[in-house]
Amino acid sequence: MSGFVSFVGSGPGDPELLTLKAAARLKAADAVLFDDLSSAAMLGHVRPGAELVAVGKRAGRPSPRQDHVSRLLVDYATGGARVVRLKSGDPGIFGRLEEEITACRAADIGFEIIPGVSSASAAAAAAGIPLTRRLSARRVQFLTGHDVRGALPEGMRMAALADPEATTVVFMPRRTFAELAELLIAAGLPPQTPALLAENVSHPDQALTWSSVGGLRDILAGDAAGAAPALILYGPLAGGAE
Amino acid sequence: MSGFVSFVGSGPGDPELLTLKAAARLKAADAVLFDDLSSAAMLGHVRPGAELVAVGKRAGRPSPRQDHVSRLLVDYATGGARVVRLKSGDPGIFGRLEEEITACRAADIGFEIIPGVSSASAAAAAAGIPLTRRLSARRVQFLTGHDVRGALPEGMRMAALADPEATTVVFMPRRTFAELAELLIAAGLPPQTPALLAENVSHPDQALTWSSVGGLRDILAGDAAGAAPALILYGPLAGGAE
Repeated sequence: MSGFVSFVGSGPGDPELLTLKAAARLKAADAVLFDDLSSAAMLGHVRPGAELVAVGKRAGRPSPRQDHVSRLLVDYATGGARVVRLKSGDPGIFGRLEEEITACRAADIGFEIIPGVSSASAAAAAAGIPLTRRLSARRVQFLTGHDVRGALPEGMRMAALADPEATTVVFMPRRTFAELAELLIAAGLPPQTPALLAENVSHPDQALTWSSVGGLRDILAGDAAGAAPALILYGPLAGGAE
Repeated sequence: MSGFVSFVGSGPGDPELLTLKAAARLKAADAVLFDDLSSAAMLGHVRPGAELVAVGKRAGRPSPRQDHVSRLLVDYATGGARVVRLKSGDPGIFGRLEEEITACRAADIGFEIIPGVSSASAAAAAAGIPLTRRLSARRVQFLTGHDVRGALPEGMRMAALADPEATTVVFMPRRTFAELAELLIAAGLPPQTPALLAENVSHPDQALTWSSVGGLRDILAGDAAGAAPALILYGPLAGGAE
């Protein structure tokens, strides 16, 4: 008898931002594979006796090999377990979901995806602003600050990223934002474009720093080594214009 | 004594995709203002005696005036009520959140935003695919298919929207997608780019139609009048490539 894998979004960190469905899957799980980035508080939903397996990557520390995580998933499910693979935020957004889905498919293991609250949505909510604006930001885009090499992704379309009429959210921006900001400004985005650095979103030690694209470039050029999970929002942010 | 407004994301429609925090706010509310688009099942969390106020807009039907909704919010809160303003998906994404926040600020009424699961995340999850891919889709963008006039937004950056290396999600695409698809193809996006029409996402009558940008153009050119809430995803979709 084969098991089943539920890829479950844990939301941005606040245990109350877990969905009812995610909590139900945690309750029913035989094994839960989780990242360090996920709040430990969410594991309180897991029944006694279920296996808890930390497979986490964390900013600044070496990641376990992705194929190791996929193999663990397949091993637990092949043994008949109901497996929850807990992923921070929404699992479909910069969550390395595809690699693990591919492993399940290859092993003929059934799976489902339970979407979660994105940390981008939570960052905007914490700042009291919307991600879209009816007249000035009718497009919102998410990009990752680094690819598998740890550098800015290749082939970025600067016309997309330097659009003053879109809200942009950069995931994992810390090490590359100074460089990205230079590219944005060179592509015509005004350096005074409002920008928000959101760290530890929805956690008790959440910190929001209002600045500008040029301002965050200067801040992060000098301090790119911080360990807290971070996002940067820039564009015609509602709060930044007031 | 003044009340308080919680702008609460109800998620894409499945009542189980409500967050624990959203359920708690519904339980504690004195008044709940909700759109028809929200699932009625979520109102089961509301305590007996609380006021339920339908203020909904629905695709194809005339919307109540936005300023009427804002006035209702302010009136209830000024009367001392704990008000929940329930909005489908994530309230910060194409949710007309800013207008209602502005009304609260003007009336000196405290508010908070509880983020929710976006229908874009739920559509991808239902299709079994991620919104981002490690090598081929390092950017994801959401745009609205129509502005306040009901037409495609002005000033769209086609270089952003016709990027074959981004996943794009079009909200409220039905009436304008045929026109948008023509613009995308003219800007260089191959018509055979994978595309997914997702209707009634996460509801029992959910329907997923796999096609291409050119294919959905043809389908929707002939049937733009459907009433079901819909999203279109296009780009290097994982499922579409297989």
